[in-house]
Amino acid sequence: MRIDLNADLGESFGAWRMGDDLAMLELVTSASIACGFHAGDPLTIRRTAAAAVERGVVVGAHVSYPDLAGFGRRLLDVGPDDLAADVLYQLGALDAMCRVAGGRVRYVKAHGALYHAIGRDEVQAGAFVAAVAAYDRSLTVLGTAGSVVLRLAAAAGLPTASEAFADRGYAPDGALVPRGDSGDVLTDTAAVVAQALSLARDGRVAGGDGDHVAVQADSLCLHGDTPGAVEHARAVRAALVSAGATLRAFVD
Amino acid sequence: MRIDLNADLGESFGAWRMGDDLAMLELVTSASIACGFHAGDPLTIRRTAAAAVERGVVVGAHVSYPDLAGFGRRLLDVGPDDLAADVLYQLGALDAMCRVAGGRVRYVKAHGALYHAIGRDEVQAGAFVAAVAAYDRSLTVLGTAGSVVLRLAAAAGLPTASEAFADRGYAPDGALVPRGDSGDVLTDTAAVVAQALSLARDGRVAGGDGDHVAVQADSLCLHGDTPGAVEHARAVRAALVSAGATLRAFVD
Amino acid sequence: MRIDLNADLGESFGAWRMGDDLAMLELVTSASIACGFHAGDPLTIRRTAAAAVERGVVVGAHVSYPDLAGFGRRLLDVGPDDLAADVLYQLGALDAMCRVAGGRVRYVKAHGALYHAIGRDEVQAGAFVAAVAAYDRSLTVLGTAGSVVLRLAAAAGLPTASEAFADRGYAPDGALVPRGDSGDVLTDTAAVVAQALSLARDGRVAGGDGDHVAVQADSLCLHGDTPGAVEHARAVRAALVSAGATLRAFVD
Amino acid sequence: MRIDLNADLGESFGAWRMGDDLAMLELVTSASIACGFHAGDPLTIRRTAAAAVERGVVVGAHVSYPDLAGFGRRLLDVGPDDLAADVLYQLGALDAMCRVAGGRVRYVKAHGALYHAIGRDEVQAGAFVAAVAAYDRSLTVLGTAGSVVLRLAAAAGLPTASEAFADRGYAPDGALVPRGDSGDVLTDTAAVVAQALSLARDGRVAGGDGDHVAVQADSLCLHGDTPGAVEHARAVRAALVSAGATLRAFVD
Repeated sequence: MRIDLNADLGESFGAWRMGDDLAMLELVTSASIACGFHAGDPLTIRRTAAAAVERGVVVGAHVSYPDLAGFGRRLLDVGPDDLAADVLYQLGALDAMCRVAGGRVRYVKAHGALYHAIGRDEVQAGAFVAAVAAYDRSLTVLGTAGSVVLRLAAAAGLPTASEAFADRGYAPDGALVPRGDSGDVLTDTAAVVAQALSLARDGRVAGGDGDHVAVQADSLCLHGDTPGAVEHARAVRAALVSAGATLRAFVD
Repeated sequence: MRIDLNADLGESFGAWRMGDDLAMLELVTSASIACGFHAGDPLTIRRTAAAAVERGVVVGAHVSYPDLAGFGRRLLDVGPDDLAADVLYQLGALDAMCRVAGGRVRYVKAHGALYHAIGRDEVQAGAFVAAVAAYDRSLTVLGTAGSVVLRLAAAAGLPTASEAFADRGYAPDGALVPRGDSGDVLTDTAAVVAQALSLARDGRVAGGDGDHVAVQADSLCLHGDTPGAVEHARAVRAALVSAGATLRAFVD
Repeated sequence: MRIDLNADLGESFGAWRMGDDLAMLELVTSASIACGFHAGDPLTIRRTAAAAVERGVVVGAHVSYPDLAGFGRRLLDVGPDDLAADVLYQLGALDAMCRVAGGRVRYVKAHGALYHAIGRDEVQAGAFVAAVAAYDRSLTVLGTAGSVVLRLAAAAGLPTASEAFADRGYAPDGALVPRGDSGDVLTDTAAVVAQALSLARDGRVAGGDGDHVAVQADSLCLHGDTPGAVEHARAVRAALVSAGATLRAFVD
Repeated sequence: MRIDLNADLGESFGAWRMGDDLAMLELVTSASIACGFHAGDPLTIRRTAAAAVERGVVVGAHVSYPDLAGFGRRLLDVGPDDLAADVLYQLGALDAMCRVAGGRVRYVKAHGALYHAIGRDEVQAGAFVAAVAAYDRSLTVLGTAGSVVLRLAAAAGLPTASEAFADRGYAPDGALVPRGDSGDVLTDTAAVVAQALSLARDGRVAGGDGDHVAVQADSLCLHGDTPGAVEHARAVRAALVSAGATLRAFVD
C-alpha cells in the first residue's frame, strides 16, 4: 500500500490568508501550489515553494483560469491558444520560485473549474497537455482517473497520476457528488479516515447507495482551507501510517 | 563601433494593440519583452518571445510594478520582499515562453517607474538585483550608466550593460529631460539619427545647452509604440550600418 | 422612419487606445460606454461620459463579465448573485461619471459574451434584469429583438429597445452569422449602408440566401473600433438622413 | 460626550474572508465600506451595504488606490485626474449598492496609503476633495484632525469629521506611531478602552512619553480585522455607554 498525499497550498493573496500551509506541509508528500491566477501573490508563492522544497515535499503547479474574484471556480470559455499560454505563464512563474529555492516543479494539476473542464473537454484538455509537454516532458499530469486530460496526457507521452478525495462524497458511478448537493463533503473525521483507508488499500469508496465503487488513486487530495481540515489531514495520515501504508510522492 | 539596438516589445494586452512588434524585430538585436505586469497577456508574450527567438533576437525580461491601469508608469512603494518576488514571477513566466520556443531570457531591464526607482533607490534596486542573481547569475542587467542598480548588479557579480535613448532629450548633466518638459522627445528623424550616431560613435550627446555630455551606452533603446517610431528605428539602423557600426547584442 | 444610432465607446484602457470616441460621438444618438470590467479605466470612462453628455448623446451602461484580458468576449459561468452585483457595481460607477457631468445613465446593454448569454440563458438574464430594475426602473434595456433578456425585462416592467447591426451578416433565421464564419462582417461600405437602410426602413435584412428576413430594430449598432469604422458610420448616418430618417435616441 | 464609532468593513474578496462584518455592524454607528480597489468584490460590497442600511448604520465609501495585491497599503504616485476618476468610480459603485438597499453613501474616507497621502499631499488631497465635491456636496469627508485633506475639504465647503484610533499608539506630537514601530498597536483590552474613553471624553491621548496630547475626534475608528478586534470593539462600546456617552454618527 503506497500512496501520495497532496494538498492545495499557496492560496493566500496579499492581506488575505487561506489555509495553514506550514501545518499541511508537515503532512503531505506533494504540494499543489497556486500560481497567481486564482490565488497566490508572488511572495506567497515564493514562500510556499521554498517551504515545500526545504521539507522535501514535491511541488506541483496548480494552474487556473485567470479569475481571482471567482477563485478559479467559474468556467471560462477560453480559447486553446490563450489557455496554453496561460498554463505556460503560471508554470514558468512557479518554476522560478522553486528553482531559486533549489527545487523545481515536478507535476501540474488544474484548479477548480479548469480541473473539471479538462476532465471532459477535449479542446481545453488538449491545450493544457500541449502546454505541459512543451515546457517539460518529464512533468507528471495529476488528475482524476478516467478523465479526458489523463488520456490525452498519456497519449502525448507524459507521465500521469490519479487522485481521489478523502473528504468528498462519491456517487454510485464513481463521480464526485457535485458541490452543493447532499453528501458533497464528508465532515465527520471518522468517515474521512475510513474513506481514505478504503481508497488507499482497496481502491474503492462506498458510493451513495452503500455499494462500493472502484476509484483508482495514486494520491489522496487533502483539503487545507476548511475548518478542521488540518485535523482531518492529520488523522488521515496517522491512520494510513498505522495501516502500514508507505507515504511517498507519485513522482519519485 | 559596436552597438546593440533594443526595443520594448510585447506590450499589447488582450484586444488592445500597441506597437508593431514584428517590424521592430527586424531592426533590433535585443527585445525587452513585457511580462504581464504593465502589459503583455500570456499569449502576446508567448508569440513575441517565439518571434524573437526565431529571428535570433536576444530576449530580455521587461519587468514592472503590477499596474496595468497605469502601464507601470506610476511609482509604487512596494517593499523589497514583494518586489523581489514580483521580479522572479515575471522572469520565470517569460523564461517559460522563451524555453518552449528554443531560447531563454538573457537579460533583465526594469520598465517605467520601476526603471527610474531602481536607478536611485538602494532598497528597491537591491531587491531587484537579488532576484535576478537568485534566478540566474548569467543574466545581464540592462540600465542607465551610473545608476544605482547597475552599481549594485556589478557588486553582486552580475554582468551589466548600459543603454541610452536615440529619441529622448538629454539635460546638460546627462540625465533625461523629464517627460512633459520641453525637449523631452526628439520627433525629427534627422535629429534622432544624429543623436544615435553621436551616442554610438562618440559616447556623447548634445545636451540642452549645445555642449556635449558623455553618455555611455552599450545599447540604444528604440521606442516602438509612438507614431513614426518604426520609421525612426529603421533610419537609425540604416545610418549606423552606413557609418560602419557592428550591430550586435551586448550579451553575445 | 425613426431610428437610433448607437456605438460602443469608452473602450480604451490606460495606455491602450481603442476606437475614436470623439468622432463617433458626432455620429450617434446613443453611446454604450464601457464600465471597467471589459474595458474603460475610470478616467477614460469619465471623459467619455462627459463628452457624450456635453453633446446631448444618450448614455447607456455597457456592462460585462469581469475579464479585461479577454475583453469580455469569453463566457464566464458566474452565479446570479455575483452577476447582479457586478451589473450594479458597473452601473453605479458609470452613473457617477454621468452625474458629475450633468447627465445620467439612461439605458443598459450587455457586452460581448454576456450579451450572448443573456440572450438565451434565463438565469443570467434574470439576474441582469433584476439588477437593472433594482437600480432604476426607468432604465431601458437594449438588446436583440426576441431575446430572453428583452422578454424578462418587459415582464419586469422595464422599458426595452431592440438593436440590429449594419455591418454584421445575418443568417436566414435572423440570427447573426457567428464571428469567424464566412460572411460574419460586412466590409464593403455600400453593403453596410444598404443593410442599414433596409433595417431602418423595412425592418428586414437580406439573409445569407438572398431572401429577406425580418429584424426589428429601434437602434442600429455602429462599430467604432475597426478599420474604416468611422467612415462606415458616417456613410450610414448620411444615407439615413438622405432617406428622410429621423435620428433620435430610443429613450427620448 | 457624543461620539461616533466607525469600522472598516466589506474587506472580504471572493473566497477570502476578512473580519466579521455582521458582528461589527452591531457595534458601530458608521461603516466605511471597501469599494473594490483594495478589497471588496461587488457581492461582498452589496451585502455589506445592505446589512448596514438595514441596521441604520451610516455608510461611507472607503476609497483606495487600485491595488488588491497590496491591500491599498502601498503609496501609488497616481496623477490627480486619474485619482479623481478613481474616487468617483468607487463612490458611484458603492452608492449603487446603498441605493438598491434603500440608503445612500453619506461620507467618504480614504484607505491605507491613500489616507496617509492625502493627509499631507496637496495635489492628491485636492483631487480627492474635487471628486467628492463634484459627486455630492453633502458628503462628509472623514479624516484626521489637522490633515491637509480636511483643510481642503472645509475650504471647498464640504462637511468634515475627524477620527482617532482607540487601538493605535500615538507619538508625543499627536501623530500615530508608524506601523512596525514599538507601540504601534495597543493589544491590551483595558488599554484600548482607556484610550477610547480619554479620546471621547477629554479629546486627548497619553502620548508615548506619558504626557497627554490633544487629539480631536468626532469618531473613533475600531478595527475589525485583527484577532480579538470584535471583543475590543464590544468593550469600547460598553465602556462609552457606561460613561454616559451618546453614540451617534457624525453625519446625523
